[in-house]
Amino acid sequence: MLFFTQCFGAVLDLIHLRFQHYKAKRVFSAAGQLVCVVNPTHSLKYAPTRCAAVQASTEQGVLPPCHHHEAVHDPQLVPCTCPLFSCPWEGHLEVVVSHLRQTHRINILQGAEIVFLATDMHLPAPTDWIIMHSCLGHQFLLVLRKQEKYEGHPQFFATMMLIGTPSQANNFTYRLELNRNQRRLKWEATPRSILECVDSVISDGDCLVLNTSLAQLFSDNGSLAIGIVITTSKVHSSEAEM
Amino acid sequence: MLFFTQCFGAVLDLIHLRFQHYKAKRVFSAAGQLVCVVNPTHSLKYAPTRCAAVQASTEQGVLPPCHHHEAVHDPQLVPCTCPLFSCPWEGHLEVVVSHLRQTHRINILQGAEIVFLATDMHLPAPTDWIIMHSCLGHQFLLVLRKQEKYEGHPQFFATMMLIGTPSQANNFTYRLELNRNQRRLKWEATPRSILECVDSVISDGDCLVLNTSLAQLFSDNGSLAIGIVITTSKVHSSEAEM
Repeated sequence: MLFFTQCFGAVLDLIHLRFQHYKAKRVFSAAGQLVCVVNPTHSLKYAPTRCAAVQASTEQGVLPPCHHHEAVHDPQLVPCTCPLFSCPWEGHLEVVVSHLRQTHRINILQGAEIVFLATDMHLPAPTDWIIMHSCLGHQFLLVLRKQEKYEGHPQFFATMMLIGTPSQANNFTYRLELNRNQRRLKWEATPRSILECVDSVISDGDCLVLNTSLAQLFSDNGSLAIGIVITTSKVHSSEAEM
Repeated sequence: MLFFTQCFGAVLDLIHLRFQHYKAKRVFSAAGQLVCVVNPTHSLKYAPTRCAAVQASTEQGVLPPCHHHEAVHDPQLVPCTCPLFSCPWEGHLEVVVSHLRQTHRINILQGAEIVFLATDMHLPAPTDWIIMHSCLGHQFLLVLRKQEKYEGHPQFFATMMLIGTPSQANNFTYRLELNRNQRRLKWEATPRSILECVDSVISDGDCLVLNTSLAQLFSDNGSLAIGIVITTSKVHSSEAEM
């Protein structure tokens, strides 16, 4: 009986995913564009089981700065860069991707143009939607975060980080695009390196920022579809060009 | 002596304007693009000399709803739509532009593509930067407003209104573009009609919204350059198209 109940649950999940995929397809004509449904994760990095300082800052709605390990002796080792968990792992930059996949179960997608479909936008802050994106020979981490920078006023922050060094990151440009209800919003920037802290990028506001009202205008039935394009920027798009 | 002091002041102003114009030209390659320097106006609409209700709402940092005249008998008459002043004028839609120019000294510019250079972004909220824009046989009102929707956290809101009816407004698409420091932010939407209230468009957040930190990233020495393009949208850009 339990087996049949589980099967039924799995079939329902599949139908739900298929429906969300269909919705995203409808929004993003997307011949050839990969639509990826991304479920939210309530950030465990700042859970109340952690130390008092982190607890205090979480209560104030302020996210603490990056947790860098004090005892890193090998300068080639980097700490775990997962924005969700405070993880004691450290290793070489080349194995960060496999650590994020295997330990933190972050999915990875292939393709220069994908559609990131974040579900359940109504969930309370802090919540993260995270995926890795592999293209142009590199891996990128896309983070969408719902956070209350000002108490009682959640906002959405979206940014893309290269899993590589800052000088490698300078070779790319990423574009995030929202498109719905005869409105269109595009954010284009150079990705930051994962060696910089995603928390500080978000607290600096140097990313795509959406008020709740704008997020609602762009979302469809609680899901927000973000089109993502990554290009090389060897000849960096001139600031003069409009 | 006073004459020479005034002349010197005027020359300094001219040099300052010329410098700002040059800066905007540098940012926006702008061969053929008209750069318009727009100075801020501290909104007098909500000044403390007005009635108690308006005073109270201003003190709470909340802008009151549009002031519509209770005794409009002729349905073809519209109230003054100037976002800066609470003005008792009413008249036909066709003469709103001349009223805004003559009574409220709002400049008008010609051209399908212009650059709106808002100066003195540091001034405290509420502050407005306003200009009229004539193109494609119609006149538009561009409003950039600095406002504290959440107390102590000023934001910038930019929108474009057609000086015409809502059905006329549906024929157009406007695009606002910020471009600086290897970052680019574009907002594209159908303009609202001036018969709808600019205050409600801004309070709904259905416009380009910038946090102070993003506004600083895009501004140069206290001035924010916004590229503006208006197009007809008879065949409205499909939502599917990315």
